[in-house]
Amino acid sequence: MPQVIADISVSLDGFVAGPEDSSGRHPLGIGGERLHRWLFELATWRTRAGRGGGERGAGADIMGEYFTRTGAAVIGRRMFDHGEKAWGGEPPFRVPVFVVTHRPLPPRPMPGGTHFEFVTGGVAEAARRATAAAAARGKDVAVMGGGQVITAALAAGVLDELRLHIVPVLLGGGRPLFAEPLDPAITLETTRVELSSGVTHLFHRVPKQEGRHRCSPTR
Amino acid sequence: MPQVIADISVSLDGFVAGPEDSSGRHPLGIGGERLHRWLFELATWRTRAGRGGGERGAGADIMGEYFTRTGAAVIGRRMFDHGEKAWGGEPPFRVPVFVVTHRPLPPRPMPGGTHFEFVTGGVAEAARRATAAAAARGKDVAVMGGGQVITAALAAGVLDELRLHIVPVLLGGGRPLFAEPLDPAITLETTRVELSSGVTHLFHRVPKQEGRHRCSPTR
Repeated sequence: MPQVIADISVSLDGFVAGPEDSSGRHPLGIGGERLHRWLFELATWRTRAGRGGGERGAGADIMGEYFTRTGAAVIGRRMFDHGEKAWGGEPPFRVPVFVVTHRPLPPRPMPGGTHFEFVTGGVAEAARRATAAAAARGKDVAVMGGGQVITAALAAGVLDELRLHIVPVLLGGGRPLFAEPLDPAITLETTRVELSSGVTHLFHRVPKQEGRHRCSPTR
Repeated sequence: MPQVIADISVSLDGFVAGPEDSSGRHPLGIGGERLHRWLFELATWRTRAGRGGGERGAGADIMGEYFTRTGAAVIGRRMFDHGEKAWGGEPPFRVPVFVVTHRPLPPRPMPGGTHFEFVTGGVAEAARRATAAAAARGKDVAVMGGGQVITAALAAGVLDELRLHIVPVLLGGGRPLFAEPLDPAITLETTRVELSSGVTHLFHRVPKQEGRHRCSPTR
């Protein structure tokens, strides 16, 4: 059974994008690129991008394993809209990507193996379809973000694991890690931490629980 | 020269107290006690409280060393007001404690070595006086919280180190770790991480920088 694993980089002050990320001028928000620099400097990222060199160590190993085990991805429409131009004609996913959206588009197969599908039934439906696609390849599902999709996945009880990559920068504002208040009844267990190239990789299991978790006003 | 070190427990959703912590009924906010349970279960805490047993490991060692090296403390008035009753006649600090406040009280020496002093000149003055007191004992200064005092200390450039104890619980709301937006020019460096008894201890150096850091609208 594929595992559904979310990964996201977060600043020390708890933001996954900097201020003004809706302006169009700063897709990651002001300073938001500081959250992702560590990734592009990893040897395993550079190898995948056809370049040499880069940082080795626990972070590189973690992300190398991430690329290998990912058989399908779930992303939000915001990430799709902002990424489309940056990814170019051959997006780096190389697997089926299920885009959670209220504004569906026709399926979009791309050179290199990426195949975008637009899902209007919410993150649970996207995770279900991604799980089927990943199972066919004997791999796992990567919930790649942004924060809104990861929050919804956690709230809907579809995540098996949440991996935070804590970057010791301050953004001073922006998009918080969790886009909505989460139910305190959701339990998580920290299973592994690694400090590598200045970034803390913090892994959590999300034990499967009965029903769904939407924050309710019952307490 | 004493080091000025802040320690605070924070939930995975970034809160240092739960919702409704101003109501008087829940000094730590609803669910906020879940942030501190790990501490009371440590062998080194229990020993200090005159009890036996408890958890051993990196967390116990970190906090044992904390008790040993603390020669003076800085806390906020909120923590003082809420703690006063809980601490009883012999507060657990056993060192000079400088309380940052706009509403000063006369100095209050207590049995057991705790001596409260009320400082109206802000966190920088409190840190300065605590540093002098700690230096006289060859020890360090502990900035104990709450979040507002720690945020102000970071903004004022008086912290040498920030230690976060990340507890994998969700509070769903409450007081965020940083009480005000911080200047993205403040740099931090993650120096150590330890996972112990389910809690991640995340240490950061705060290199001394020119001038003070208050978030300004210049960017």
